[in-house]
Amino acid sequence: MSTSYTRLDKNDAAVLLVDHQTGLASLVRDIEPDKFKNNVMALADLAKYFELPTILTTSFETGPNGPLMSELKETFPEAPYIARPGQINAWDNDDFVEAVRATGKKQLIIAGIVTEVCVAFPTLSALAEDFEVFLVTDASGTFNALTRDSALDRMSAAGAQLMTWFGVACELHRDWRNDIEGLGTLFANHIPDYKHLIESHNTLQSTP
Amino acid sequence: MSTSYTRLDKNDAAVLLVDHQTGLASLVRDIEPDKFKNNVMALADLAKYFELPTILTTSFETGPNGPLMSELKETFPEAPYIARPGQINAWDNDDFVEAVRATGKKQLIIAGIVTEVCVAFPTLSALAEDFEVFLVTDASGTFNALTRDSALDRMSAAGAQLMTWFGVACELHRDWRNDIEGLGTLFANHIPDYKHLIESHNTLQSTP
Amino acid sequence: MSTSYTRLDKNDAAVLLVDHQTGLASLVRDIEPDKFKNNVMALADLAKYFELPTILTTSFETGPNGPLMSELKETFPEAPYIARPGQINAWDNDDFVEAVRATGKKQLIIAGIVTEVCVAFPTLSALAEDFEVFLVTDASGTFNALTRDSALDRMSAAGAQLMTWFGVACELHRDWRNDIEGLGTLFANHIPDYKHLIESHNTLQSTP
Amino acid sequence: MSTSYTRLDKNDAAVLLVDHQTGLASLVRDIEPDKFKNNVMALADLAKYFELPTILTTSFETGPNGPLMSELKETFPEAPYIARPGQINAWDNDDFVEAVRATGKKQLIIAGIVTEVCVAFPTLSALAEDFEVFLVTDASGTFNALTRDSALDRMSAAGAQLMTWFGVACELHRDWRNDIEGLGTLFANHIPDYKHLIESHNTLQSTP
Amino acid sequence: MSTSYTRLDKNDAAVLLVDHQTGLASLVRDIEPDKFKNNVMALADLAKYFELPTILTTSFETGPNGPLMSELKETFPEAPYIARPGQINAWDNDDFVEAVRATGKKQLIIAGIVTEVCVAFPTLSALAEDFEVFLVTDASGTFNALTRDSALDRMSAAGAQLMTWFGVACELHRDWRNDIEGLGTLFANHIPDYKHLIESHNTLQSTP
Amino acid sequence: MSTSYTRLDKNDAAVLLVDHQTGLASLVRDIEPDKFKNNVMALADLAKYFELPTILTTSFETGPNGPLMSELKETFPEAPYIARPGQINAWDNDDFVEAVRATGKKQLIIAGIVTEVCVAFPTLSALAEDFEVFLVTDASGTFNALTRDSALDRMSAAGAQLMTWFGVACELHRDWRNDIEGLGTLFANHIPDYKHLIESHNTLQSTP
Amino acid sequence: MSTSYTRLDKNDAAVLLVDHQTGLASLVRDIEPDKFKNNVMALADLAKYFELPTILTTSFETGPNGPLMSELKETFPEAPYIARPGQINAWDNDDFVEAVRATGKKQLIIAGIVTEVCVAFPTLSALAEDFEVFLVTDASGTFNALTRDSALDRMSAAGAQLMTWFGVACELHRDWRNDIEGLGTLFANHIPDYKHLIESHNTLQSTP
Amino acid sequence: MSTSYTRLDKNDAAVLLVDHQTGLASLVRDIEPDKFKNNVMALADLAKYFELPTILTTSFETGPNGPLMSELKETFPEAPYIARPGQINAWDNDDFVEAVRATGKKQLIIAGIVTEVCVAFPTLSALAEDFEVFLVTDASGTFNALTRDSALDRMSAAGAQLMTWFGVACELHRDWRNDIEGLGTLFANHIPDYKHLIESHNTLQSTP
Repeated sequence: MSTSYTRLDKNDAAVLLVDHQTGLASLVRDIEPDKFKNNVMALADLAKYFELPTILTTSFETGPNGPLMSELKETFPEAPYIARPGQINAWDNDDFVEAVRATGKKQLIIAGIVTEVCVAFPTLSALAEDFEVFLVTDASGTFNALTRDSALDRMSAAGAQLMTWFGVACELHRDWRNDIEGLGTLFANHIPDYKHLIESHNTLQSTP
Repeated sequence: MSTSYTRLDKNDAAVLLVDHQTGLASLVRDIEPDKFKNNVMALADLAKYFELPTILTTSFETGPNGPLMSELKETFPEAPYIARPGQINAWDNDDFVEAVRATGKKQLIIAGIVTEVCVAFPTLSALAEDFEVFLVTDASGTFNALTRDSALDRMSAAGAQLMTWFGVACELHRDWRNDIEGLGTLFANHIPDYKHLIESHNTLQSTP
Repeated sequence: MSTSYTRLDKNDAAVLLVDHQTGLASLVRDIEPDKFKNNVMALADLAKYFELPTILTTSFETGPNGPLMSELKETFPEAPYIARPGQINAWDNDDFVEAVRATGKKQLIIAGIVTEVCVAFPTLSALAEDFEVFLVTDASGTFNALTRDSALDRMSAAGAQLMTWFGVACELHRDWRNDIEGLGTLFANHIPDYKHLIESHNTLQSTP
Repeated sequence: MSTSYTRLDKNDAAVLLVDHQTGLASLVRDIEPDKFKNNVMALADLAKYFELPTILTTSFETGPNGPLMSELKETFPEAPYIARPGQINAWDNDDFVEAVRATGKKQLIIAGIVTEVCVAFPTLSALAEDFEVFLVTDASGTFNALTRDSALDRMSAAGAQLMTWFGVACELHRDWRNDIEGLGTLFANHIPDYKHLIESHNTLQSTP
Repeated sequence: MSTSYTRLDKNDAAVLLVDHQTGLASLVRDIEPDKFKNNVMALADLAKYFELPTILTTSFETGPNGPLMSELKETFPEAPYIARPGQINAWDNDDFVEAVRATGKKQLIIAGIVTEVCVAFPTLSALAEDFEVFLVTDASGTFNALTRDSALDRMSAAGAQLMTWFGVACELHRDWRNDIEGLGTLFANHIPDYKHLIESHNTLQSTP
Repeated sequence: MSTSYTRLDKNDAAVLLVDHQTGLASLVRDIEPDKFKNNVMALADLAKYFELPTILTTSFETGPNGPLMSELKETFPEAPYIARPGQINAWDNDDFVEAVRATGKKQLIIAGIVTEVCVAFPTLSALAEDFEVFLVTDASGTFNALTRDSALDRMSAAGAQLMTWFGVACELHRDWRNDIEGLGTLFANHIPDYKHLIESHNTLQSTP
Repeated sequence: MSTSYTRLDKNDAAVLLVDHQTGLASLVRDIEPDKFKNNVMALADLAKYFELPTILTTSFETGPNGPLMSELKETFPEAPYIARPGQINAWDNDDFVEAVRATGKKQLIIAGIVTEVCVAFPTLSALAEDFEVFLVTDASGTFNALTRDSALDRMSAAGAQLMTWFGVACELHRDWRNDIEGLGTLFANHIPDYKHLIESHNTLQSTP
Repeated sequence: MSTSYTRLDKNDAAVLLVDHQTGLASLVRDIEPDKFKNNVMALADLAKYFELPTILTTSFETGPNGPLMSELKETFPEAPYIARPGQINAWDNDDFVEAVRATGKKQLIIAGIVTEVCVAFPTLSALAEDFEVFLVTDASGTFNALTRDSALDRMSAAGAQLMTWFGVACELHRDWRNDIEGLGTLFANHIPDYKHLIESHNTLQSTP
């Protein structure tokens, strides 16, 4: 049963960051907080690096859910920012869908808090409208592993592709020669082991 | 491969609580008991909150399986209650199926003890009769993770959607504005972290 | 997407126990040894209880793989016993396939050591010949969880249904009233928690 | 829903070892290093044992990614070796694809570092060109279990078969009688438990 | 090496609840939130049940650390409540130490957030002043297991006794006959498994 | 810092089995139920095998705690059996202490449910009266690992020696030649892996 | 058994960072890399914040062990830096011990790679010379948990106190009022959850 | 509380390898088999490298316990080899104790199968006779973690020092300059990550 390879293309992809809010972040217990924050910022940094249109949205940010993580605001000062007045599924908010359509992109890279709601609902809605959805599982968080795995199964069964931020970056970049230093810096900033490899390498190379 | 989004609708959904009995509960070892009880009651409370028709059923409740958890009886004093005389698959009991059909609903939200039997069997039967089945994985329990994962794979392969109680509540509610306080109370009662967010927020807001 | 429920039927099912040998058992590390042995014997006991035709087979039993577990020999003294001279996939052995066909059953309940070989290979072969295959995941063992999960994914994708011994017993039995004591004894012998429930219940009932 | 059994055939299979480099190896954290190295070398040894055409490739081996693991070079001194100048997906490198096609094989056995990139990308590309892909999950490594599981789901959904090195060896060998000592040696070298079984057995047999 | 048994005595024990605040609670990741909240409230309820003098204290409660959990305020409306203006170690706050001394008790039962700071510091201070300290490990929480285990080792080495709330309750109660219903209710409210045992038992007993 | 070796001596040891009741058993979640039941029965069987004086005691056995596990009653039909009317610490019950003293033994081997109460309290009491206490950690169970580890730390700090049933059996037996078959049978009955070793060995030896 | 509280004092403490080198870092597998790097830098930052004399040392930094992590060099440009020519135990290097003694401090806060060697050896040496040693367990890393736990047991038994970086910071700071913003910044930079609490708090406070 | 540093000295240490037999190895489940075998051989190789007197002993090697692992025999063809006729505690065998005393060493490095018996018993015996005992925890194996941890606690409380093979090698070697290549080879042979570091380093250094 052969299949075509639905492959991320930096000219046809947009990024949706859904409800990465400071209050909701305290609910995330399926990924360690240090790692989760790093994953979210890695996704944000790669979106910026590849100049992908990026859309920010929040749910009830003046209430207990809290404001958007400040680093995201700072990374995307010009991005469309939809503070939803009440819709739980971002796709039920016309401004959000309009912003998505305005990008003109067919491929949606999505992540958020919490996985089974803020990520799953717009993912399922977008798939139903023939978008290709690439779910960034490690930049999405929720209460525990059972909840996450149930949600991933639901989305995968509906046709979403499960990826992590490193795979997204590599599939978008295609060839190191497009920009060795740029991609290397992205990795060094978010993967300590990779940074260590680079430091070992550079030190040895610069030794006469 | 686009798919339509089979979405929970509070006007078209019923809840089936299968064999949440005090004896059987001692068999549940794939979820910690504090969390499991909380999940079951959260599902019950959301069923009541959304006024979904709810059906209770038990297996051999006068034997070692024990009576229905008392909190469930108290939450649904008027619900159809089918104490099955012997059928392991609730769907093999005519009263149960009749009660399900009497709700007139097409979407079934199901949970129970144990996952691979009391949940899986009626799930597979209902799917075979064209119901849409939404399995609440975290309000269902069984002997261990391998047993659970095998059962979830079987049900998912047959077309059931895997969800958890929080996702069910959010998909049913659609928009916070339908009732902010009601949903917030449901969450506060069953998610300590959420309750803490609300308390921090309210305390600060009420400080001049 | 409705599906028909392919349901175990005690009149149409046979059990295949593949390579539960004393040497191979030392390779099983994805399930604790106490629990694994218990699961294997529970499956054997239910096969006997439901009088399902059962086929035993071993691989190279005079070598390091060791003899069949003695309890299995004792449980099924009359069962077809195919000591394969070399074929790794039992389905490549004509005597084995003949024995399977001789049962006249369409549903095969299978377990063995190791999961990704001795279970997966005949499972895939049988599915290709239109048998319905029910894999007993907890009576099958292998090196580690990654190996098991890879094998289960391969078999599930090919159409095998993943079950565990308790689910098999319940799906075969259908209704407690067919024999309350028989099924209760089976469970008491292999589920300590269930035995404790029964003892608590019986003690209290017998107290005036 | 019957399916045909797409079975590994030693006359129709080639092995692709992608980016098993000494620097990249430090990124692998989803499998313990002792076990991972053992799995990689077991796959290499079985490729050699079955005389399967094997292709080696590396990414940026003069940089931080480091050289190919020395044992692999030593095991396959004559194998095609494609040091990719920049393409992240090996399938984007014409020399690599040419080398694959030159084998004339339809079945590809693949492993590499990291799973979601160096393994997943060529897997998806090869599936799209109607190759049969058998992914060796335990000879492939990456950052953590969530990343791996997401990648395996993506590849499985696209039609790749998930296997581990032991299953690959057994499916290729078919029958112990083809070469008992050869296969036994392969297992003894990479499975300590199996070696112990053999030593116990041989010692006892040689005792008068 | 015999030792005397330093045993909790309800006439000589006081309870110290340190910094169970709604903001700090989001830092607790070594115990699941459902269980942790339950453990904290179980300790509070037993303190009240045994009428032990109880002292509440908070750190910077008007800042990000947040207010005291509301349930604790409600459980101990009359308890000494020391909102520390800055001292991290509660024992550095004279009002707190005075409140402790005012109880006239020699045995201190302590719990708090986070374990290695808010619990460990006053524990070490109190031990240095010859109090007997009983640390309630499961009503104390912190960032992760390594942090907790390091802190428990430090306190144990200094002479603190490690206990959990259930052991504290039992050691204080001594004999069920002192009040069967009271203790049973405490357990039923905080141990779902125990509640289920009671319900099974009572149902059966009340059946004629 | 040399120490004398306080070594179990079958002529100076008694066994105390505390509250292994069918209701309480449902509270044990730090050890898998199959394994726990096996450990308890292994300890019972070794006590009988070495003819150690054994004392049974229960807490409130007519209530929810349930009756003593039936297998224990059957194993020790003549043993002193103290059904405590209310004392939580068995050592607070005069009949129990008298029964212990009546054995005339200095070394006490103890296990029970739950570890931090029914085991820890009499352990600490006995140590305070200069008994040597050997705690069988794997035949004692409780709510979770944190509770167990806290209790073990408390008992170890007070001078109890932590052992498991296999170590107890070996330390009592001293020399295989005292009775090879007896000890081998004990191990075969409770360690599946050991039974498999014996079966492999015997089969090979009996092959001409 | 009362004990005096050996408490960290910022006027009497020095920090020893042993062998945090980029090559050795790839050996650390008992803590996730994101978290480990964060912990190491948190310790470095607190050393700088409290102006504690800090000593850096490396082992064979021109070989495979690699150079010191660049961030540490940048944080402590003026610190004594002892590149040991071969001594595995830093305390065997006279320059190192001299640098330690030159600080005039009695309390040593130590961390490094790997725990059982580079940390344990100088810890045991320093304890033998009457220093007070505070081991920062979460800024020290090694091959796996068993190795770490064995090493921690050895050091704890010799009198070292086990702490983590957060506890060290709090014990040194004593009172928030000494510098609220400084300590808050340290925490926000290294504890995402704490940063989120601060952002939620500040946002709400700044809302009119 | 200062302590002297009881430090391994290659001129005063002997190695005891107790019951590393092929049958007993199948009982080891607290460490993965690949890693365990590697650890045992690493300890053997370091014993040989440092030319430490080494003593081999086995228990009932003609029975199910099986022969000594062949690699150990090959590594130490001249070592004293005591096949114990029945004593479970090797220290109860006069030949063994005599062999230990004949080494003239005061420091004993010990490992074996299973930890709580074959290792713990001679450890406790040797400590009672004033030997210094260094237990190699990762070259010792047993049924599960609870058993191991109980045994380690017992030995640590009696004065044994817990180490792992890498720490033993480093403490014996003292200074890399004593033999860089020899120690490096030992590490490369048993630590894949270290081998990779060396290969990366050497490749880069040899590049002009």
